[in-house]
Amino acid sequence: MSQLDPLLFGEIDPPQRLLMGPGPVNAHPRVLRAMSADLLGQFDPEMTGYMNQVMALYRPVFGTGNRWTMLIDGTARAAIEASLVSLVEPGDRVLVLNFGRFGLLLTEILTRIGAVIETVDAPWGEVVPLDAVAAAIERSGPKLVACVHGDTSTTMAQPLDGLGALCRAAGALSYVDATATLGGMEIAADRWGVDVVTGGLQKCLGGPSGSAPITISDAAARHISARRHVERGIRRADIADGSGARIASNYFDLAMIMDYWSEKRLNHHTEATSMLYAARECARVALGEGLAARFARHAAAGRAMTAGLRAMGLTVFGDDAHRMTNVTGVFIPEGVDGERVRAAMRDHFEIEIGTAFGPLQGRIWRLGAMGYNAMKHKVLLTLGALEACLRMEGVTLPAGAAVAAALAAWEA
Amino acid sequence: MSQLDPLLFGEIDPPQRLLMGPGPVNAHPRVLRAMSADLLGQFDPEMTGYMNQVMALYRPVFGTGNRWTMLIDGTARAAIEASLVSLVEPGDRVLVLNFGRFGLLLTEILTRIGAVIETVDAPWGEVVPLDAVAAAIERSGPKLVACVHGDTSTTMAQPLDGLGALCRAAGALSYVDATATLGGMEIAADRWGVDVVTGGLQKCLGGPSGSAPITISDAAARHISARRHVERGIRRADIADGSGARIASNYFDLAMIMDYWSEKRLNHHTEATSMLYAARECARVALGEGLAARFARHAAAGRAMTAGLRAMGLTVFGDDAHRMTNVTGVFIPEGVDGERVRAAMRDHFEIEIGTAFGPLQGRIWRLGAMGYNAMKHKVLLTLGALEACLRMEGVTLPAGAAVAAALAAWEA
Repeated sequence: MSQLDPLLFGEIDPPQRLLMGPGPVNAHPRVLRAMSADLLGQFDPEMTGYMNQVMALYRPVFGTGNRWTMLIDGTARAAIEASLVSLVEPGDRVLVLNFGRFGLLLTEILTRIGAVIETVDAPWGEVVPLDAVAAAIERSGPKLVACVHGDTSTTMAQPLDGLGALCRAAGALSYVDATATLGGMEIAADRWGVDVVTGGLQKCLGGPSGSAPITISDAAARHISARRHVERGIRRADIADGSGARIASNYFDLAMIMDYWSEKRLNHHTEATSMLYAARECARVALGEGLAARFARHAAAGRAMTAGLRAMGLTVFGDDAHRMTNVTGVFIPEGVDGERVRAAMRDHFEIEIGTAFGPLQGRIWRLGAMGYNAMKHKVLLTLGALEACLRMEGVTLPAGAAVAAALAAWEA
Repeated sequence: MSQLDPLLFGEIDPPQRLLMGPGPVNAHPRVLRAMSADLLGQFDPEMTGYMNQVMALYRPVFGTGNRWTMLIDGTARAAIEASLVSLVEPGDRVLVLNFGRFGLLLTEILTRIGAVIETVDAPWGEVVPLDAVAAAIERSGPKLVACVHGDTSTTMAQPLDGLGALCRAAGALSYVDATATLGGMEIAADRWGVDVVTGGLQKCLGGPSGSAPITISDAAARHISARRHVERGIRRADIADGSGARIASNYFDLAMIMDYWSEKRLNHHTEATSMLYAARECARVALGEGLAARFARHAAAGRAMTAGLRAMGLTVFGDDAHRMTNVTGVFIPEGVDGERVRAAMRDHFEIEIGTAFGPLQGRIWRLGAMGYNAMKHKVLLTLGALEACLRMEGVTLPAGAAVAAALAAWEA
C-alpha cells in the first residue's frame, strides 16, 4: 500500500462543472440517483421485469414498435460495432454515408469486419443529398447502407426520411448511428423504415456513457438470428443454431444478446445493472417530459446558441438547413488561441466547451446544449461567459448582445 | 405515450435481496454512492486525474507494477474479448486450460477470432495439473496460453504459480481471466509472470457489472502496439501505426485504448464515467480494508459455507484442494427439486442462491459469499434459511447444525 496515497486519493468529489461541449454532458440528477439503487440477480423476476420495462420505454424513444429494443453493455460505439458485426459478413458490400468523423468510424469498423466498403461523401459541414444516396445504392448494390444521423464532428444532421424505402427497394438493410441525437431530435425508426438504430445515454438523454440503446427491425432480427451460434457451455435444446456465418464477436453477437433479452433468458454477459437503471431513468425522464416538448426544448437551445454566437459577431459553422439542434460549431476568431479560451471558460466559469477533430481542429469550437443542459439559463450563462473570455483575449464584441439575442431566439 | 404505463413504471425500487449466488452480488454502499457523483468532460484534468488514480489503484489489486492497468468499458467478458482479439491474430495457435464453462468461453471467443485452438482439459470439479500444461505447451507450441483463474461454473481455482515461467520459456504470451476472483483471492500477475489479466467488478470487488479492470505486461503491450492502426478521423502525427496485423475489433482495440489512457489521450470511446467512479471506489474499499485481510475474510466465508453445508449432511462439489473461497457448489439432495428450494429461498427469505450450467445443471446449487457479502452474518443467515427451506421440502436435517458449524469454522 505504501506506493499509494495514504488517503487512497480521497472521496469521489468532481468539480461542479457545466458541460456545454459535444458530450458527455451533465446527467439528470434523477438518473444519477437511480444508479445508487441496490443490485439484483440477473434472472430475478424483478430484474427481468426491469429489462422488459426498458424495452417498452425505448420503443417510443426510437419511434418504433420493434420487439427487439434493448441495451448493449458498453459505450455508444459498442452498439455501433455490435450492429455492424452482426449484420455484415466478410466480403459483404456496404455503402456508408460519409460526412464527418463518425462516418469515418463506420468505415473503420467495417474495414476490420472485412466488408467491401463504398462511400457516398459530403464535405464536412454539409449532408449527403438523398438522390446521391439513391445513385450510390444503384451503382454499388450494397447489402447494407450505414449512416450517422447527427455527426457531432460537423454538427450536421442527415435527413433520413425516405432512406429506408430506397434501401428496401434495393434489397439492402439499413443502419443508423443516432448516438448524438437520440432523445433530443426526432428518431423515427419505423417511419424512416430503417432496420437498426443505436444510441448512447451521454448526449441528449442526459445520462452517463456506458450503456447503449439499440432497436432492431424484424427483418434485421431474422437476418441476425440466421447467424446464431450459441456458445459452448450454455447451449440449450430450445435454441437452435442458424445456417448463416458465425458472427465474428462473442460479446457483440446480437443473436445471443436477443436470446438473453427474450423470454429464453440465455445467459450471455451479466447485465450491467446500474447502467440499466440509468438507461431506464433516462427514458422515464424523456417520456415524462414528452418527446415533442423535449425536441422543442433542444430546438430552442440550438436556436438560442446560434443567435447568440452570431450576435457576438462570430461565424457559425456549417449548413443552416441541416444543423443539429444540440451541438453548434463556431469559428474561432482570427488571432485567438482557441485552447486558451477553453481554459479560461473552465478556470473562471467552470464551463466546458468543445474542441474539434480532423480538418476542423483549431478552427472551430463546438458548443452543446443537450439533455439536462438544453436549458435557457445554461445557454445564456455559457454565452455570457464566452463573451467575457473573448474580451479577455482582446476581441472587441458588442457588449451583452449575445445574451439578449439568445433570449429573444429562445422565446421565439 | 398511451402504450406505456401512465406512471412510466414508477421509480426504481428493487427489493432488498441478499445475493448469495455466484455473482452479481450486492454492491458495497460506498460504490453505489460514488456512482451518483456528477459527470466530467472526458479530457477535463479532473477526469484524466481520476483515470490515472484508477490505474494506480488497480496495480496492487492485480499484484503488478504494470504501467498498463486500466478499465475496459463493458462487462467482464468485454475485457476477455479485448485481450484475446488484441493478442491473437487469425491462424495463431492458442492453448486453453479448460476445466469449466468459462474455459469453454475462451475457446468460443478464440474460434471467432480465427485462432487454432488446443485445449488441455480437466474434468469439471478439478483443475489442470501444471505438468499437463507443460506437456501441452511443449506439444503444441502456442503463441498464447489462456486460462481462467476461478471458474464459477465448477467453483475451482486453477493454481497459477509457475505458469508464466513455463510460457516464457516456450516464447508464449499468457492470459488469465480473473473475473470471479479479483479482489477476493490473491491475484499475483507479476509473481505468476503472466502477461494479461482481466477482472470484473460484480464478484469479489463488490461493485456492479459494466466495467472490467485489465492489466497488461510491457511485453504484451509491445506486441499489441505493433498492431496499432489508429482509426481514420482521429489520426495524429505523434501516434504511428505498427507493422503488425490490424486488430479485428475497433471497440476492443487495446492499442487505441492504451493510447486513450496514456498522456496522448487519443479520443477512442467516451469513458463510462459513472462506472469508472464505481471501479475507483471498489479499489479504494478493497485497499482500505487491506488485501491480505480481504483474502482472509473470503477464505473464512468459504470455510464457513463449506462447513455449514457439510454439517447439514449435504455433499460439497469438487476438489477440496482447489476450491475457490468465494463460491461453493453443493449437490442438491436426492429427490429435492432444486428450483423449488431456490424459489423458497427468494420468496421467504429474499436470499438468492445460484443454479448451475451444463453438466451440473439441476445437480448442484452454487452459493457465493464475496465482496460486500463475504460476511459472517450473511453466511449464517443463508445457511439457516437453506436449512428451513430444505425442511419444508421434507428433507430431514440435524437442526441448527449448519449455523453452529459455520460459526465455528469462521472463527477457526
